[in-house]
Amino acid sequence: SIMAKGITPRAEDYSRWYQDVIAQAQLADYAPVKGCMVIRPNGYAIWENMQRALDAMFKATGHRNAYFPMMIPESFMKKEAEHVEGFAPECAVVTHGGGKKLEENLYLRPTSETIIWDMYRKWIMSHRDLPILINQWANVVRWEMRTRMFLRTTEFLWQEGHTAHATAEEAEEETRRMLGVYATFAEEHMALPVIQGLKTDAEKFAGAVRTYCIEAMMQDTKALQAGTSHFLGQNFAKAFDVKFQDRNKELQYVWATSWGVSTRLVGALIMAHSDDEGLVVPPKLAPIHAVVVPIWMKDDQVEDMQRIGGETFDALREAYPDLVFRLDDRREMRPGAKFAEWEKQGVPVRIEIGPRDAEKGQVVVVRRDTREKTFLPRDEAVSGLGSLLETIQKDMYTRAGAFREANTHSVDDYDTFKTRLEEEGGFYLAHWDGTAETEARVKEETKATIRCIPFDAPEESGKCMVTGAPSSRRVVWARSY
Amino acid sequence: SIMAKGITPRAEDYSRWYQDVIAQAQLADYAPVKGCMVIRPNGYAIWENMQRALDAMFKATGHRNAYFPMMIPESFMKKEAEHVEGFAPECAVVTHGGGKKLEENLYLRPTSETIIWDMYRKWIMSHRDLPILINQWANVVRWEMRTRMFLRTTEFLWQEGHTAHATAEEAEEETRRMLGVYATFAEEHMALPVIQGLKTDAEKFAGAVRTYCIEAMMQDTKALQAGTSHFLGQNFAKAFDVKFQDRNKELQYVWATSWGVSTRLVGALIMAHSDDEGLVVPPKLAPIHAVVVPIWMKDDQVEDMQRIGGETFDALREAYPDLVFRLDDRREMRPGAKFAEWEKQGVPVRIEIGPRDAEKGQVVVVRRDTREKTFLPRDEAVSGLGSLLETIQKDMYTRAGAFREANTHSVDDYDTFKTRLEEEGGFYLAHWDGTAETEARVKEETKATIRCIPFDAPEESGKCMVTGAPSSRRVVWARSY
Repeated sequence: SIMAKGITPRAEDYSRWYQDVIAQAQLADYAPVKGCMVIRPNGYAIWENMQRALDAMFKATGHRNAYFPMMIPESFMKKEAEHVEGFAPECAVVTHGGGKKLEENLYLRPTSETIIWDMYRKWIMSHRDLPILINQWANVVRWEMRTRMFLRTTEFLWQEGHTAHATAEEAEEETRRMLGVYATFAEEHMALPVIQGLKTDAEKFAGAVRTYCIEAMMQDTKALQAGTSHFLGQNFAKAFDVKFQDRNKELQYVWATSWGVSTRLVGALIMAHSDDEGLVVPPKLAPIHAVVVPIWMKDDQVEDMQRIGGETFDALREAYPDLVFRLDDRREMRPGAKFAEWEKQGVPVRIEIGPRDAEKGQVVVVRRDTREKTFLPRDEAVSGLGSLLETIQKDMYTRAGAFREANTHSVDDYDTFKTRLEEEGGFYLAHWDGTAETEARVKEETKATIRCIPFDAPEESGKCMVTGAPSSRRVVWARSY
Repeated sequence: SIMAKGITPRAEDYSRWYQDVIAQAQLADYAPVKGCMVIRPNGYAIWENMQRALDAMFKATGHRNAYFPMMIPESFMKKEAEHVEGFAPECAVVTHGGGKKLEENLYLRPTSETIIWDMYRKWIMSHRDLPILINQWANVVRWEMRTRMFLRTTEFLWQEGHTAHATAEEAEEETRRMLGVYATFAEEHMALPVIQGLKTDAEKFAGAVRTYCIEAMMQDTKALQAGTSHFLGQNFAKAFDVKFQDRNKELQYVWATSWGVSTRLVGALIMAHSDDEGLVVPPKLAPIHAVVVPIWMKDDQVEDMQRIGGETFDALREAYPDLVFRLDDRREMRPGAKFAEWEKQGVPVRIEIGPRDAEKGQVVVVRRDTREKTFLPRDEAVSGLGSLLETIQKDMYTRAGAFREANTHSVDDYDTFKTRLEEEGGFYLAHWDGTAETEARVKEETKATIRCIPFDAPEESGKCMVTGAPSSRRVVWARSY
């Protein structure tokens, strides 16, 4: 029943369903600070797994971590004109410290380009100091009016890469490389298919020359921007006067990139895969891979079944030292309540063993994603778990991809676009005349924006769905988070 | 020469030596924000290794990570009387957000007891919800007047454990357990012997019933508090009204602990082990374990020597997949400059190979800690590297212990204490009458404080070195960071 689970079905109220999944899986809680959240251990464990995978990918591509101050002098924020225009209005401001009014206000970082480029001026003299490939794991603050757990909170956790290069080509290559890292992470770890592409000028990062992004479809068919990678050109080098002596002994401004993903990815993960029973987590990011639940009917079976459950648990740990298992042999709780609890938390596989199963040497293996049950000899269940987890990972990706395909449509005229968007939601591939005016009009009239100009969009001569002006490729339109 | 290395000898100016080591090893840099620092990749890599080891120890003792907001409402800070008195004066205050003055000021966390206990009130109902064993990795802000890199900065990185228990005994046990974890980490990973003990009331955490600490001796014989673990009693439970229903269905206030270590540990590591050539890092925390430097005299040797260096590098990587190696085969740099660079960065082992070594199939193995050189057949150098690193780790601990022993003295009268402290520095084991007045007088007159009442101090009837009043055990006095 809904009451018992406490999860509103998606079909009834998608927003409430999302909040319910978070509450029931104990992923996060509202904080007593406006717009902020508390990430509880179950939610943080997913973020830690994301961090671990991403950090390894950053290091494999030559990046190193560092840490820069969170408080940024107001004057720094003002040095890059577009940047301050974009970010200053949503900053939190420290005006007092140590009991005194400060001489200069300090902004809590909404992003760290300014303070990092001020340091790069000190560190970069010659072409030999380049490239600088630095990443930072940090908290950032952006004052948000309308917040939603994980997706948009006043304070959030993220990583921000900030790199410095001798040439535009190298910086562009880095920008695209890191977008590729994000796409690989989303697809291979989050089981989330993404569209890689270029943002329009209206949607690009304040201070960037170009912003690339990965866009994913959620289960309500809305789009979610899951990561961005910016080619910053020489904008910050000029604002902070960062020059290097090139091989010809000439002074040149340095080229820059920045790129980031945040705890928003946890929200994307929830929205993409979970169901009316609660959280569903792809095995590669699951804090617990499988839970063993021994079952008993009578008191005199408890000890035997606890022992048999323990043996299966031990066999799993021995077979898979890198995976995490749990044995749920709590006495005071009924099996049904245990099943519901682990389902809500999204543990990919549950292994149940009742007294009759034990007699037959078998176990019941239950997939969280499909809730499919299989009766297997215990040894087979253990030896097959690794490939079962791989299958689940692959199936989750395939299902998310099929869902996106089913909800992505090509349209050629604006009326059809408006009607279908309103009735069905989804992603729309449509021609655009390339102007900010058209983009703004569509946003105003339909709340849909251009999510990106996809890298893989084929050249195709067509006409803008709104103005009829010529267009050479389709872009992706959707409502978004 | 001093100029070339850029490191002031310890004997000349210990403070400048410390700053020089940090600058030359590129561990950190001054930030353009008062009292703040930038942790550069070389320094952050050490912190990451510390985090990895500590995090594993926290998880092995049942703790899970979570994340709470950095901005704490002013009213929260004021709920625990001693806490606000201790921390409010050193807070940074956010007064504006999103372009508007806030209704209530927000303090940047100097520590998170208040916001965490506000959440624990929501999460704790029954004895079944206890214990809660949560840790947080975070940045904190304490407005400092006199700062020193890593040791005392306005913003720093740390972990803070916050646990909730049903009984005082359990909370006390947790407090001591985590102090033990810190001691084990300091001794086994940092190669830093520490004294475990109890802080006096004057030195305890604002809001704690009791504070335990680990204290280490630096190379200038001053003390450095390297970690603290607090038994908070029911102070925060009462301030935030956190009660649970016990097994007898009665409402009880919850018992609390908190414990933390910070990036200050990086400062302790530098001060404890480094020398006039630069940083010395114990192998267990070293970002790079060994560097291979092929050497050539003539241009026609370059390719051969690069290849031979590469072979040794590959052999090391194959033999020790979990360790990190570097091959320094840069053409444009002389061997001496390379040696100096890796010495400054504290890489535990350097393996040099010149053309004559190559002919003989040998290499030169140089320990960073002792700078001792050994000529070894290449295969022996490779196969022996693991145990060499263990030896270095052990020797560093032993040397630091011997240094502390040599600089720890028992004294019985205050005049001797004052004279010796002034002339020799060091730790002094002396009797104390247990009063805050005596402690304050000694601090005022000598700048020494009671670092702790050591757990292992034997019962010994004596007289306070200052007042002559009876005392039952010696405490540790020293000047400190």
